[in-house]
Amino acid sequence: MNATTRPRVVIIGAGFGGLTAAKALKNAPVDVTLIDRRNHHLFQPLLYQVATAGLAPNQIATPIRAIVRHQKNVNVELGTVEAIETAQHQVVLGDRRVPYDFLIIATGARHAYFGHDDWEEFAPGLKTLEDATEQRKRILLAFEHAELEPDEAERTRLTTFVVIGGGPTGVETAGAVAELANKALARDYRRIDPKSARIILIEAGARILGAFPQSLSEHARRALETLGVDVRLGNAVTHVDESGVTLGGEHIASRCVIWAAGVQSSPAARWLKIPADRAGRAIIGGDLRAPGLANIFVVGDCAAVNDSAGKQLPGVAAVAKQQGAYAARAIKAALNNETLEKPFAYVDVGNLATVGRKAAVVDFGAIRFTGFIGWVFWSVVHIYFLIGFKNRIAVALDWVWSYLTFERGARLITGDIASEAPAAADKRNAA
Amino acid sequence: MNATTRPRVVIIGAGFGGLTAAKALKNAPVDVTLIDRRNHHLFQPLLYQVATAGLAPNQIATPIRAIVRHQKNVNVELGTVEAIETAQHQVVLGDRRVPYDFLIIATGARHAYFGHDDWEEFAPGLKTLEDATEQRKRILLAFEHAELEPDEAERTRLTTFVVIGGGPTGVETAGAVAELANKALARDYRRIDPKSARIILIEAGARILGAFPQSLSEHARRALETLGVDVRLGNAVTHVDESGVTLGGEHIASRCVIWAAGVQSSPAARWLKIPADRAGRAIIGGDLRAPGLANIFVVGDCAAVNDSAGKQLPGVAAVAKQQGAYAARAIKAALNNETLEKPFAYVDVGNLATVGRKAAVVDFGAIRFTGFIGWVFWSVVHIYFLIGFKNRIAVALDWVWSYLTFERGARLITGDIASEAPAAADKRNAA
Repeated sequence: MNATTRPRVVIIGAGFGGLTAAKALKNAPVDVTLIDRRNHHLFQPLLYQVATAGLAPNQIATPIRAIVRHQKNVNVELGTVEAIETAQHQVVLGDRRVPYDFLIIATGARHAYFGHDDWEEFAPGLKTLEDATEQRKRILLAFEHAELEPDEAERTRLTTFVVIGGGPTGVETAGAVAELANKALARDYRRIDPKSARIILIEAGARILGAFPQSLSEHARRALETLGVDVRLGNAVTHVDESGVTLGGEHIASRCVIWAAGVQSSPAARWLKIPADRAGRAIIGGDLRAPGLANIFVVGDCAAVNDSAGKQLPGVAAVAKQQGAYAARAIKAALNNETLEKPFAYVDVGNLATVGRKAAVVDFGAIRFTGFIGWVFWSVVHIYFLIGFKNRIAVALDWVWSYLTFERGARLITGDIASEAPAAADKRNAA
Repeated sequence: MNATTRPRVVIIGAGFGGLTAAKALKNAPVDVTLIDRRNHHLFQPLLYQVATAGLAPNQIATPIRAIVRHQKNVNVELGTVEAIETAQHQVVLGDRRVPYDFLIIATGARHAYFGHDDWEEFAPGLKTLEDATEQRKRILLAFEHAELEPDEAERTRLTTFVVIGGGPTGVETAGAVAELANKALARDYRRIDPKSARIILIEAGARILGAFPQSLSEHARRALETLGVDVRLGNAVTHVDESGVTLGGEHIASRCVIWAAGVQSSPAARWLKIPADRAGRAIIGGDLRAPGLANIFVVGDCAAVNDSAGKQLPGVAAVAKQQGAYAARAIKAALNNETLEKPFAYVDVGNLATVGRKAAVVDFGAIRFTGFIGWVFWSVVHIYFLIGFKNRIAVALDWVWSYLTFERGARLITGDIASEAPAAADKRNAA
């Protein structure tokens, strides 16, 4: 430990885990350095709303500096971590070295393709704002190109949307695409009818929302089908390319495939040279410390931690936040030469998922909501947890507006459009 | 004219001119095709607010389809015009041909560098949403990199912002950057003081806001200086490169230069093979028809039209809107084999510019406002003209919020960050 200054706590990643840890160290006699590749904290549970043009990027992202502005012991640094020198207690960012006495790694996960990285080009995932605005462009451009397309088969392919993965992200995305097509876009085209768009949700398991009770999975499936989503269960995708998706013997022609089927941890375990599970998560004990590296904590989606029953904790915001808070408590104890008596124990705060604007499933164990009550509950919870008071007002306004008018607030195609135009779309009047 | 169907009016560009023309043809017995490279109409007068993190892109952009949704005789097509075959009455978009009986060209202008195109890389301009989010990234990253920079001279260079051009865009941008540094960012850094940032506005002429009366120019200059902006008059920039800006014998070291000094018309004149002025604008008579091409109208920033006194009309929204409406009236008259008796005459609706959040200059000829009253007036006018009722609410909410809290709603750095990091910024802890 540094003799002349206060102990240095370095936190990598300003997601739910890292940010909670930083805040929990507010009154501790330490200097905190919070490092992130981005200048903003992202409220990932609503990222699918950006991808489907319901919310604007700034409504679900808040500058990290603004969040910790009044916490004078936190120093925010923009940078990309490349390695950790555990022997020298330094984080490596290019030529830059940031020394630490305690380190919290909270770098999250990216989507993964189970060894089929070549699918990513045709079925991008959803983890960053750039991912979301790219998805939004793909979805909106599909309708634009269909409007110009003389060939009926190609038109059908352009307006077939395939979502791979029946977890909360896949379910929420499929529902939101269906509502976009059925409501917001319904009257905006002259040649195509957006309501005739096909939305297909593919889940390899026997039911969607596998983490929820069977009855809520069933309810969500029926709600999706009411919205017109074709839910395919027990079917694993075997191939994805430019032409569409193959599952079983069937080929689904689609120009817009969305990946929501799996995640791969950021390289925390590799940086620390400690064991990882199949998804790359660092295998960590109940003290959340890296094995053999007592001053390093790993929290959130990049950590594989089991609960007391031996079941692995899910990669959700609540787990990351509670782990971030636990790591901060452990550091405060260590400053007094103490260790926490109890290992980390996750307090289950329930599961929520929404299906369009009138249905949601909420599982609090004893209490379960579905339908409109579930949707209202889901909305209140999400708005409550959105960081930044103004974001809460803006998102609430947007949702009330969408609810009353079926309008979408963020239907922008940005970025390079010309290069995206399929050759076919330019041939309409050539004949 | 087509015998079996209704006359076809093709409008290229859904800016102020094209959109006004399309709306003015609402009840005319014509089929309108509105072509744009983008899916959104952009409220360009507020683009500087996106560039300076005050507003989000979706607050100043509205999907074109949503605007004309209820106007059944308008068909919107996304596409990039490459040529016009005036002999065959066709607009060429790649392999696609769109036939017309009447054509309205309203394709606007881009920024221009007076023969110094190599300056663009270092001093980008502001005409599209992508331009604005790129400017926003450059401005916000400059502060991030300064926070990590050990060398004082380099830190000064990183926090020196140069705006070239003293028209409304340059004045409004310089004021907004000053407020961003002095207010929104003031408490967010630990090593640098954003309030010590230098903002320099360079104008080659003898005063800023040359289109306004002398007294209002003078008022705006004083308001900028109160905000801490260094206004340099009568100084033309002679060189721009990675190191900064040269004017006269002086070199100003800056990593963030913003270009607001000139525009170049889109290639309407070249497409039609008709004479253009120095800025590339098609030289058009009072009937707004292309010389020798009676069924083609050119309106807005791509047209050079003189008023009755022989003075060229300015490239502002009001001129474009009035010209778009005039072209629509002329087409409706032509359907009855009539021609409009009077040539186009611009009704001057006044000039507005704002300097930060408490000052604006408003020139209505007889009536002039300055200061806070001017700012309130400016806000009301801009919000009123923002297309989309919801955008009006959202922008009003944002401005009230910013006014009360000095906070910025859209302080996001998106896009590729790693590649932007200056080498120097990575050397801090290397020493």
